[in-house]
Amino acid sequence: MDIRKAVITAAAPDQHTLPLQRLVDRQGQDKTALQLIVEEVTGAGIEELCLVIRPGDQVSYEQAAGEHLGMIHFVDQTEPRGYGDALLRARDFVGDDPFLHLVGDHLYLSDSDTCCAKQLIDIAREHACAVSAVQATRENKLPDFGAVGGSHVARHTDLYEVTRVIEKPTPTQAEQELIIAGLRAGYYLCFFGMHVLTPFVMETLEHLQSETVGHESTPAALSSRGANRSITLSDALSVLAQRQKYLATELKGTRYNIGAQYGLLIAQLALSLTGRDRDHILTELVELLAMRNNRA
Amino acid sequence: MDIRKAVITAAAPDQHTLPLQRLVDRQGQDKTALQLIVEEVTGAGIEELCLVIRPGDQVSYEQAAGEHLGMIHFVDQTEPRGYGDALLRARDFVGDDPFLHLVGDHLYLSDSDTCCAKQLIDIAREHACAVSAVQATRENKLPDFGAVGGSHVARHTDLYEVTRVIEKPTPTQAEQELIIAGLRAGYYLCFFGMHVLTPFVMETLEHLQSETVGHESTPAALSSRGANRSITLSDALSVLAQRQKYLATELKGTRYNIGAQYGLLIAQLALSLTGRDRDHILTELVELLAMRNNRA
Repeated sequence: MDIRKAVITAAAPDQHTLPLQRLVDRQGQDKTALQLIVEEVTGAGIEELCLVIRPGDQVSYEQAAGEHLGMIHFVDQTEPRGYGDALLRARDFVGDDPFLHLVGDHLYLSDSDTCCAKQLIDIAREHACAVSAVQATRENKLPDFGAVGGSHVARHTDLYEVTRVIEKPTPTQAEQELIIAGLRAGYYLCFFGMHVLTPFVMETLEHLQSETVGHESTPAALSSRGANRSITLSDALSVLAQRQKYLATELKGTRYNIGAQYGLLIAQLALSLTGRDRDHILTELVELLAMRNNRA
Repeated sequence: MDIRKAVITAAAPDQHTLPLQRLVDRQGQDKTALQLIVEEVTGAGIEELCLVIRPGDQVSYEQAAGEHLGMIHFVDQTEPRGYGDALLRARDFVGDDPFLHLVGDHLYLSDSDTCCAKQLIDIAREHACAVSAVQATRENKLPDFGAVGGSHVARHTDLYEVTRVIEKPTPTQAEQELIIAGLRAGYYLCFFGMHVLTPFVMETLEHLQSETVGHESTPAALSSRGANRSITLSDALSVLAQRQKYLATELKGTRYNIGAQYGLLIAQLALSLTGRDRDHILTELVELLAMRNNRA
């Protein structure tokens, strides 16, 4: 299983300026969030990248892409029909190949010398199937994430065979369908924003979407899918789990959602406090805290 | 002296994406840097704002302006001819009125309930003349700033009559021409990025620029002004100091240059650590520091 393509979705109306935000990386280099995300995928051996964006954003993304612009294909999501539809815009780009998928509003910090995307691709290659990165997440954060249920794979720590996927489960749903033996009580495996997917996922997204569009006014479709509900990746992964081998894994690293409040600040602090300029940033912090005390 | 207009310059090639950066303000509201800058001027009673930008940036600035878009006039700096030329693009907007001028890559945090721009305008109104905000700055930072020389105004702490302005002075120049009695040794008054200016400054900029353009190949112009050197605001303020009453003042507040390395991080920390979410941010900081120690 050779993975040379990546798809990054960055078309959500409230998220589309995030890749343009400026950060300083661990080595003290000024970068845009987009550059950091692109470096995550190039660090995993990806050679071609499809960026799904809002119409009109291409020029600012091109400016933000830096030296990697040449490997990026831009595709517009012409109507704001949600996450699943955004991913589906990359179907022609993906063709018959498995691909890495990242969301455009997350940054990743690896705890090892191997970047998170490379860790994930190595597992997908070894097991020759779709793999989602997941993170043990406290129950109170379930409303923000897709979550998986399943069981440990024998002789592999941190690797799970997925049997169930639910987008933003309620605590009751999670307790009934997503408990995984061995996790701390009240913790569930939630998506990390990084997946290796097979072309079957694109087929499934397309099928689910045509179903929704075709029957959107019938009572059955409304009750099964919810009125005006857009297709999510979780919907397709739920089908995948029933039809093909599909794994989930905990990577050695941390995800930073830069779309959350203070997300950019926390991500920048995490970069700086584990990077070259740690001492400089600590000094600045102490000065800021001292100033505040003088004033109070 | 009634000050109802403001000019913000944001056209420098390396700075033009700064106003689009996202921050969280002291009240915990998500804002762009542009919104924070615009709120600084509206908080000072400004009713009309001219934003000097790079051609092509207007759409993204409009999106970043939020609710204050209606008060903003956009003017393109069609050629990258430097800071003085950028300011001069607003000459028609300014007309015969005094105006507030801010740079687009600085954020201000007031130490009092009165925002920095309002503090400055109050002083300009009281003394009916141009006033630049300045900050006592250590000698080693002189290469980054314009600096002023002059003397204390009797019976006013933090207020100076300016007699000399030099852009990025050398330590020797500073020692010979910019020493101000009463400042700590090795400290000079450097610009804070915020001025109340009179139409005379626009006239002067125009005069200086036509002089440079007209004689740019004569040896005299080259030696007095330097080859290919663009006009700075300091050039015009140096003339102003010789011709009109011109004051400088230290405001109760701090300037954050978000164009400097880690500038956005430091500004965000300063906002957060003096704001509503101080405790939350301190908790996140402790967690990040603890994580790093686990790993090390």
